[in-house]
Amino acid sequence: MATLSCSASDLGPLLGGAANATAAAAYICGQFSTVSTKLSDTTYAIDTTYLLFSAYLVFAMQLDLLCFVRVLTNAVCCYLIYSAFLTGLVYPVVSHWFWSSDGWASPTRADNLLFDSGVIDFAGSGVVHLVGGVAGLMGALIEGPRIGRFDHSGRSVALRGHSASLVVLGTFLLWFGWYGFNPGSFLQIAKSYGDGANYYGQWSAIGRTAVTTTLAGCTAALTTLFGKRLLVGHWNVTDVCNGLLGGFAAITSGCSVVEPWAAIVCGFVASGVLIGCNKLAEKYKYDDPLEAAQLHGGCGTWGIIFTALFAKQKYVNEVYPGRPNRPHGLLMGGGGKLLAAHIIQILVIVGWVGVTMGLLFWLLHKFNLLRISAEDETAGMDLTRHGGFAYVYHDDENGDISQKNGFMMRKVEPTSRTPPSLPCSPPATPHTATHTKGFIL
Amino acid sequence: MATLSCSASDLGPLLGGAANATAAAAYICGQFSTVSTKLSDTTYAIDTTYLLFSAYLVFAMQLDLLCFVRVLTNAVCCYLIYSAFLTGLVYPVVSHWFWSSDGWASPTRADNLLFDSGVIDFAGSGVVHLVGGVAGLMGALIEGPRIGRFDHSGRSVALRGHSASLVVLGTFLLWFGWYGFNPGSFLQIAKSYGDGANYYGQWSAIGRTAVTTTLAGCTAALTTLFGKRLLVGHWNVTDVCNGLLGGFAAITSGCSVVEPWAAIVCGFVASGVLIGCNKLAEKYKYDDPLEAAQLHGGCGTWGIIFTALFAKQKYVNEVYPGRPNRPHGLLMGGGGKLLAAHIIQILVIVGWVGVTMGLLFWLLHKFNLLRISAEDETAGMDLTRHGGFAYVYHDDENGDISQKNGFMMRKVEPTSRTPPSLPCSPPATPHTATHTKGFIL
Amino acid sequence: MATLSCSASDLGPLLGGAANATAAAAYICGQFSTVSTKLSDTTYAIDTTYLLFSAYLVFAMQLDLLCFVRVLTNAVCCYLIYSAFLTGLVYPVVSHWFWSSDGWASPTRADNLLFDSGVIDFAGSGVVHLVGGVAGLMGALIEGPRIGRFDHSGRSVALRGHSASLVVLGTFLLWFGWYGFNPGSFLQIAKSYGDGANYYGQWSAIGRTAVTTTLAGCTAALTTLFGKRLLVGHWNVTDVCNGLLGGFAAITSGCSVVEPWAAIVCGFVASGVLIGCNKLAEKYKYDDPLEAAQLHGGCGTWGIIFTALFAKQKYVNEVYPGRPNRPHGLLMGGGGKLLAAHIIQILVIVGWVGVTMGLLFWLLHKFNLLRISAEDETAGMDLTRHGGFAYVYHDDENGDISQKNGFMMRKVEPTSRTPPSLPCSPPATPHTATHTKGFIL
Repeated sequence: MATLSCSASDLGPLLGGAANATAAAAYICGQFSTVSTKLSDTTYAIDTTYLLFSAYLVFAMQLDLLCFVRVLTNAVCCYLIYSAFLTGLVYPVVSHWFWSSDGWASPTRADNLLFDSGVIDFAGSGVVHLVGGVAGLMGALIEGPRIGRFDHSGRSVALRGHSASLVVLGTFLLWFGWYGFNPGSFLQIAKSYGDGANYYGQWSAIGRTAVTTTLAGCTAALTTLFGKRLLVGHWNVTDVCNGLLGGFAAITSGCSVVEPWAAIVCGFVASGVLIGCNKLAEKYKYDDPLEAAQLHGGCGTWGIIFTALFAKQKYVNEVYPGRPNRPHGLLMGGGGKLLAAHIIQILVIVGWVGVTMGLLFWLLHKFNLLRISAEDETAGMDLTRHGGFAYVYHDDENGDISQKNGFMMRKVEPTSRTPPSLPCSPPATPHTATHTKGFIL
Repeated sequence: MATLSCSASDLGPLLGGAANATAAAAYICGQFSTVSTKLSDTTYAIDTTYLLFSAYLVFAMQLDLLCFVRVLTNAVCCYLIYSAFLTGLVYPVVSHWFWSSDGWASPTRADNLLFDSGVIDFAGSGVVHLVGGVAGLMGALIEGPRIGRFDHSGRSVALRGHSASLVVLGTFLLWFGWYGFNPGSFLQIAKSYGDGANYYGQWSAIGRTAVTTTLAGCTAALTTLFGKRLLVGHWNVTDVCNGLLGGFAAITSGCSVVEPWAAIVCGFVASGVLIGCNKLAEKYKYDDPLEAAQLHGGCGTWGIIFTALFAKQKYVNEVYPGRPNRPHGLLMGGGGKLLAAHIIQILVIVGWVGVTMGLLFWLLHKFNLLRISAEDETAGMDLTRHGGFAYVYHDDENGDISQKNGFMMRKVEPTSRTPPSLPCSPPATPHTATHTKGFIL
Repeated sequence: MATLSCSASDLGPLLGGAANATAAAAYICGQFSTVSTKLSDTTYAIDTTYLLFSAYLVFAMQLDLLCFVRVLTNAVCCYLIYSAFLTGLVYPVVSHWFWSSDGWASPTRADNLLFDSGVIDFAGSGVVHLVGGVAGLMGALIEGPRIGRFDHSGRSVALRGHSASLVVLGTFLLWFGWYGFNPGSFLQIAKSYGDGANYYGQWSAIGRTAVTTTLAGCTAALTTLFGKRLLVGHWNVTDVCNGLLGGFAAITSGCSVVEPWAAIVCGFVASGVLIGCNKLAEKYKYDDPLEAAQLHGGCGTWGIIFTALFAKQKYVNEVYPGRPNRPHGLLMGGGGKLLAAHIIQILVIVGWVGVTMGLLFWLLHKFNLLRISAEDETAGMDLTRHGGFAYVYHDDENGDISQKNGFMMRKVEPTSRTPPSLPCSPPATPHTATHTKGFIL
């Protein structure tokens, strides 16, 4: 590759008059061409560095691995079919609709935009979270609650078997990863917005996205903490965690196109949505071990509406350039077109994912592939134990449920193999019927 | 924005003689102007990438969230007032004094520098750590030791209720975050020092900062580990953790302006300071659950003095440019002016934070807002348990305290349902009055 | 430093004719020189940013600290000598052979390359992992199995004392760190490959390296999970972890020079190697607490051979430039020379590390420095406990071993202080002789 080397002794004679004008021009332009190449190389290097480390952070979200592992203990087959179907067919269709430049509801289409706008779902409150929420909803509806989730009188009983410390650590890693996910969705950082304002470009929008993400999550976390405290009467660290994730799920759609103050509104409402959805779930005896429907579905839906209300014109124009005066947030004076498009988004996602995943779960249920037998589930802790998952459950959380109701999770009963004279029995000895579900995270 | 496109066929005729000289010059300079804009954009992109990922790392320090959560279990009100007062009033004043370009003790003032030098507290051994340490000291002094921290005969009893594994993980995350904090305090990375030495610029100083931070922390960790081994007689993994954090707190002030070998000295002494402070604390029955005074206060103070002793002229000039021959480390031949300024820093921080926070804590104490009742504190594990915090305490650490002395933390008392002969009972059964404080990290 | 400021009013008169031609040329070239310096500064800033954050990630691998801590509980002296000898003498020699530009087997030598090729061990399947594996092998062979690792009838008994959750978290952090290690081994990112293809440079090769690393690890993890499920009959989350690390150890050598599909082959075979090595180890009653020989040694060896089979010509030429038509992977049509060099690598590493470390361990064994007494080892939990390590062991993993065989690790025996009627006892009370080895991770 040409190196940038301008030599005055070479260039001087060329500039000496009209005779060498062409050669002089070629010389100078050759230098600029080299500069241009180097600047382009530099830009690639910066963008790759940015994208790479963002991807590393997203990887941190792969604590989903732990969820995966956990599902494994139930039925590996409830899961591989489900997972392949969701990520292989259902999700790609949705992401094409809203994110591909020729998707019918994409905001980056060349023309014929849905309501002249398309759907602004920047990092995926709808495409990722609502899809996951609806899929989880269908699965849990068809599967029914886990054995022991509600007692004979119908009251709910805490089932999750992880320590609060690990929940916090896991949430923290998801939080870390979300910075890769939301700001990282820009894919490039070395891009000026070219409006003459030197200090303002994609790098600035990325910073704003990190800020809105943080604000929405933290607001939702604190609101959930204090809200649940008022409702339930004591503090619960898992409220902080769930609230945080709910706020993140909600802001994921609009993170790049709203003001920081709007993100606080987003998180505040997300907290209410989450608490409300969980109340509803408990009331209707709906049991979803991952709270996917409530957290990802409920807060994701709110996030979609939120963006349609609060997207700011300037930011929308910058992040989705080339079409001035496009519709933006209703409350920001941008008209109702964006909201109309976003309501369409919610309806089609719920319809498409509901029907396809519903069909799948119904078939799995029909052929008894969905769940292991009741005996196996009740005795699942042995599988779990043998498999090495059994995090010892100490009823550390969900204390809002009276502990007097009894627990499926860690009822230690002597059995015929455990003589009453046994001085002590460690949690892990198979001789005692420790009713432990080995869920981790 | 103009694109960089030099065309020889356009430029050639312009260079053909004096007639078009002005046009030729405008053409060429237009190209350079574009290059300049692109280089500026590139610099912003690099600096933002650097700052963003540094901030993500600093976020990793938000395991303080866990501390927050922990304090919650005691008194949410011991805390919100305290926190708002500290971060809303006390801290901003200090940071303005030392970090703002018009702070009276700032090293970047235009003129009238304190002792011709100002205070070099790069990332905040004083502004962050000493402030936190003094605040913690006042709180703990006025609050008095937690119930059960010292037994009837006055001997200390381990109270912290976290597993050693979680302590290590938490320390590790703080370590990770410190790389965002210290090197990240440069805010920009794409900045040449412009002394003709191409290979040397802010990027190089940032690398040095990461190295000094690592060296100080690791030296202090190992020194504390072996030192405590010699003093106490067995190994303790929490010594590694506390030593590490102490070393970090100390190097935070001078990390950018000292040589790597000096960082080793810094860590070595920090370890001694930490051990000494903890000895003192135990002797005077001082109980600070977070060890803020010892770790952040003690090691932070040492860090301030350390910088005044070891700051290297060349580095000081580079990091705080524009004022050649400014005072630097006493032991590096830079005179005593920097040390004088740093002693002033210690005094004013101790005075300001001590008086303001002392007043606050005294008022809170006066109005009984500081602490929950003794009954509540003793029975706190129920709150905790219900709240979901109760990490099961297994006395896994602080083994230097004879376990025969008995523990408040996990003293299991028989209740009517548990026959009196029962010396111990499993952590999770709600039937026993497990006196567990639910601290995590 | 000169700033980039092109002024048409300054340049115009200079271009006005032959008289000022030299001055005009100097003016223009001065501007280009400034651009060149700025571009160079920019490149340093990008490269430093990349290297710095890669290093931060590698630091995440310092969970080895935990291993260190764990070894401490046995014999701190088994360890410092060993560590100093390995990293001070044995390893530097190996890394010089293969990575230094004048190492006899280096691929970047000026001439006299081993088999015209040198060894392509990009990030160290041989230099790092095989060295560690052989060192661990020698140590474990000479030390003999830990007490209690095999029962009277010679059957293996699970000994590791960490919770599955912490194993997963630890593995996850190692995974995170590996992205710093493998892609970070490029050291620079802002480097075009200069073949006129603008979109292709070191940044692209770095992305590929991250992809091959991920694919090899995940393939090995899943293969190990399902393979062990078929062999043993139940799921084990530690299989996922060990498989992942085995896949990483294998791809570390060729990660930068193979196609993504080849990385999948790499991981698949690595899983088989790992399972096979562990079968062998169990058969021959070989006990290595860290599985160093099997995981790092076995999979590292496979990685060395893998690279010699699958290295792609184009990638080899880009990553090791300046010597076109150099030997590459045998199965990619690159001849057998690379394979020959790599077999030499395996032989010399096994020979050199085996002899030197064998000698060291033999001397340590001879002078009884290698291991604490059997009494101390059996009673080790006291040290451990006091030292603060004792992660309470709940037999949570390695469920493939029948729990009926009894455990050394957590055999709780009644003492005079524990009446026989006691139904259960907490793990941590010192009154019971809890035979717990305090290993964490």
